[in-house]
Amino acid sequence: MGRMSRLAPLSGFPEWPPAERIVEVFVLDTLREVFALHGFSEIETRAVEPLERLGGQAEASKEVYTLVRRGGETAEFGLHFDLTVPFARYVEERQGQLQFPFRRFQIQKVWRGERPQEGRFREFYQADIDVVARENLPAHCETEVAVVMARALAALPLPAVHMRMNDRRLVEGFYRGVGIRDVADALRSVDKLGKIGPAAVAKELSGQGVSETVGAAVLQLATIQAPDASFKDAVLDLWEATPTTGDAGARELLGVGLDTLARLVESVNAAVPGTAVADLSIARGLDYYTGAVYETTLDGHEDLGSICSGGRYDSLVAGGGFPGVGLSIGVSRLVSRLVSQGMLVATRAVPSAVLVAVIDEDNRDVSDGIAARLRSRGIACEVSPNAAKFGKQIQYADRRGIPFVWFPAAPGEADDGEVKDIRSGDQVAADADAWVPPADDLRPRVVRG
Amino acid sequence: MGRMSRLAPLSGFPEWPPAERIVEVFVLDTLREVFALHGFSEIETRAVEPLERLGGQAEASKEVYTLVRRGGETAEFGLHFDLTVPFARYVEERQGQLQFPFRRFQIQKVWRGERPQEGRFREFYQADIDVVARENLPAHCETEVAVVMARALAALPLPAVHMRMNDRRLVEGFYRGVGIRDVADALRSVDKLGKIGPAAVAKELSGQGVSETVGAAVLQLATIQAPDASFKDAVLDLWEATPTTGDAGARELLGVGLDTLARLVESVNAAVPGTAVADLSIARGLDYYTGAVYETTLDGHEDLGSICSGGRYDSLVAGGGFPGVGLSIGVSRLVSRLVSQGMLVATRAVPSAVLVAVIDEDNRDVSDGIAARLRSRGIACEVSPNAAKFGKQIQYADRRGIPFVWFPAAPGEADDGEVKDIRSGDQVAADADAWVPPADDLRPRVVRG
Repeated sequence: MGRMSRLAPLSGFPEWPPAERIVEVFVLDTLREVFALHGFSEIETRAVEPLERLGGQAEASKEVYTLVRRGGETAEFGLHFDLTVPFARYVEERQGQLQFPFRRFQIQKVWRGERPQEGRFREFYQADIDVVARENLPAHCETEVAVVMARALAALPLPAVHMRMNDRRLVEGFYRGVGIRDVADALRSVDKLGKIGPAAVAKELSGQGVSETVGAAVLQLATIQAPDASFKDAVLDLWEATPTTGDAGARELLGVGLDTLARLVESVNAAVPGTAVADLSIARGLDYYTGAVYETTLDGHEDLGSICSGGRYDSLVAGGGFPGVGLSIGVSRLVSRLVSQGMLVATRAVPSAVLVAVIDEDNRDVSDGIAARLRSRGIACEVSPNAAKFGKQIQYADRRGIPFVWFPAAPGEADDGEVKDIRSGDQVAADADAWVPPADDLRPRVVRG
Repeated sequence: MGRMSRLAPLSGFPEWPPAERIVEVFVLDTLREVFALHGFSEIETRAVEPLERLGGQAEASKEVYTLVRRGGETAEFGLHFDLTVPFARYVEERQGQLQFPFRRFQIQKVWRGERPQEGRFREFYQADIDVVARENLPAHCETEVAVVMARALAALPLPAVHMRMNDRRLVEGFYRGVGIRDVADALRSVDKLGKIGPAAVAKELSGQGVSETVGAAVLQLATIQAPDASFKDAVLDLWEATPTTGDAGARELLGVGLDTLARLVESVNAAVPGTAVADLSIARGLDYYTGAVYETTLDGHEDLGSICSGGRYDSLVAGGGFPGVGLSIGVSRLVSRLVSQGMLVATRAVPSAVLVAVIDEDNRDVSDGIAARLRSRGIACEVSPNAAKFGKQIQYADRRGIPFVWFPAAPGEADDGEVKDIRSGDQVAADADAWVPPADDLRPRVVRG
């Protein structure tokens, strides 16, 4: 069907050979299972949204792909660039049918027309969870989504992760208290800290009219980290040491943020020890977060950036209402790292545990019958495509990584023949209604490379 | 995040509420499992292909969606409209790495910019299997893919299916033998038989220069059906009754087609009794089929058209080579029918089997602990979002369809409390490390409505 041979892989559109696809499916299935165990319902939204929903300042950089029918001129819609925009629309559309708080997970491809570069994909999987309330979202939901994601990541054979958390109220209280007028602007600058460094951030803050003393305090705040509530004292010491405007509301907000973040870090660590860190440099670019914000790093792979990010928001939808909290894993970036560095590998590239050999074409039905009986007990198998010499059929299995070859009995015999483990050479008489491979051989498994 | 309230669902882009999504996932997972049991490897290709690969006459009607970066002008690629074009490209790209015959399955969304109409989707799931050889594809592969698909469909709680089969060699041999010059043109007309009726097809054939006698024979051929080899005699009787050109090659081709189709129907019925029918009206539009062609109808839902179609081809790729045979299920059309007519329903809309009640917010960690112990044994559960009166918490579970509510023991007690089946009212003392719900309640199941 292919018509021309433009065969160079498209940059930014990852695609895996069968063995690596097994790793990707394993990751997706593991996430799906952990989310379901925690009572999250799966939804899937269409790939497209009306263009006006994909607009807005914050997403301008997301480089939306618009869809135009071939030969047509006008784009009616575009591909979603995340799973939040379609989720918001889904909730808005179905608010009368859904039960709130609505706990949903969603694992789908998203698309961004970015210039291709190292580690940036134009098509990739995201895995999102959110808990969305109709009116009030309890604070324990901020803990819950973090715990679910920490458990989901812990269910994968990965290096340890650290979930870094901050609280927007803490930051806003502090910033307002020290006299910063445009908190959102200052946050956007601090968000670049890891990329451009403190000197460049200080310069940006200065350009926003922030004094040198206040700029220094803002940068000092961002250095505070702790795996427990001890960060509170460090923040309060800094607050005391910095001239403030005397805005009582700001001080109160700071206090709420400090307490909430302390409880969050401690409760996440109680559930999944060693995971949570209060890290006051975490800013997140988006304006709409209003409480906890999260980023997650994989130990030894900090260069990947955050593999799981999100936060708490007051309004999922434009009209207001539907406060929630959510986290999103950038699955493709993670899988790409795991696969390219051989950190996770599949024990074989094919599902088949058994190749059923064929004595001759006239007796192919005997082999088909044995295969059907194995499958009825969940044993994946295939029947040899030809009736070559058994040595050739064994070679065929070996090339594919199929661990067992079943040799049917000679025509006229009452038994089912014998099965050989082609790795060890062990061969035993076997009954197709009873024989099972060792559990480790039943399906391809995904293991640390 | 939503910015405007354009909330009307987009026609042709189906999207399900959570309970219906459970049905869709069940269908997709069932297909995936049956394909894997038969030794097919899963691949997933990117959503886009270079435009020149999406061109060609046959696909002109597929109405390709092209992708343009917002603000940009030129389209570099388009969304795939089936899974064959990307599969062909994948095989061409990776021919050096893959083991042949390559047995692959692929379950993904495809997009077609068709004018929306009843039962036509613009975004939908296809589920494809193919066996592709490097050089020669054995005839038993034509049986195998049909058997795998018949078993996959039989694994779903559906009405019976009939897989209707024909053979291109049979048709081409007959057509050439009775003097039709452009076999492809005639086939395309016969392919419309169901839609436009025999009189209109006869008129089209006449327009192609086919004589009235020959046109009548072609239409007569298309009426022949049998669940076994008995169709051969009917074809040969018709052949004898029709003036032929004496082309020995055509007669030979007819003979090969008759024998192959007879073996195919009988071997599929031997494996999955009552499934296969030789149906000589099956034409399939595409030129590139060269052997078996298949269509599948769901009993009582013939108006859906074919739910699973495909055929054998000589060359998967443009340069030639890679003969194969494949079948494709139109999953979304099938799921849409199953869901809209309530033929398949989920036993509940949420994964949770248990709601763990909360005594008061200070003891939320007790409930979290019970939930964690249940989950460690595969029991999906959620913890009540609030510490309302137990009656309210039971109502909350009831509204969601969660069958069990777990009441933790009062603070200070050593036991785990009690669990209530809120349907029967039965309540028993239970240990969170040992209690299991009935198997039918463990996860939402999909059952006939």
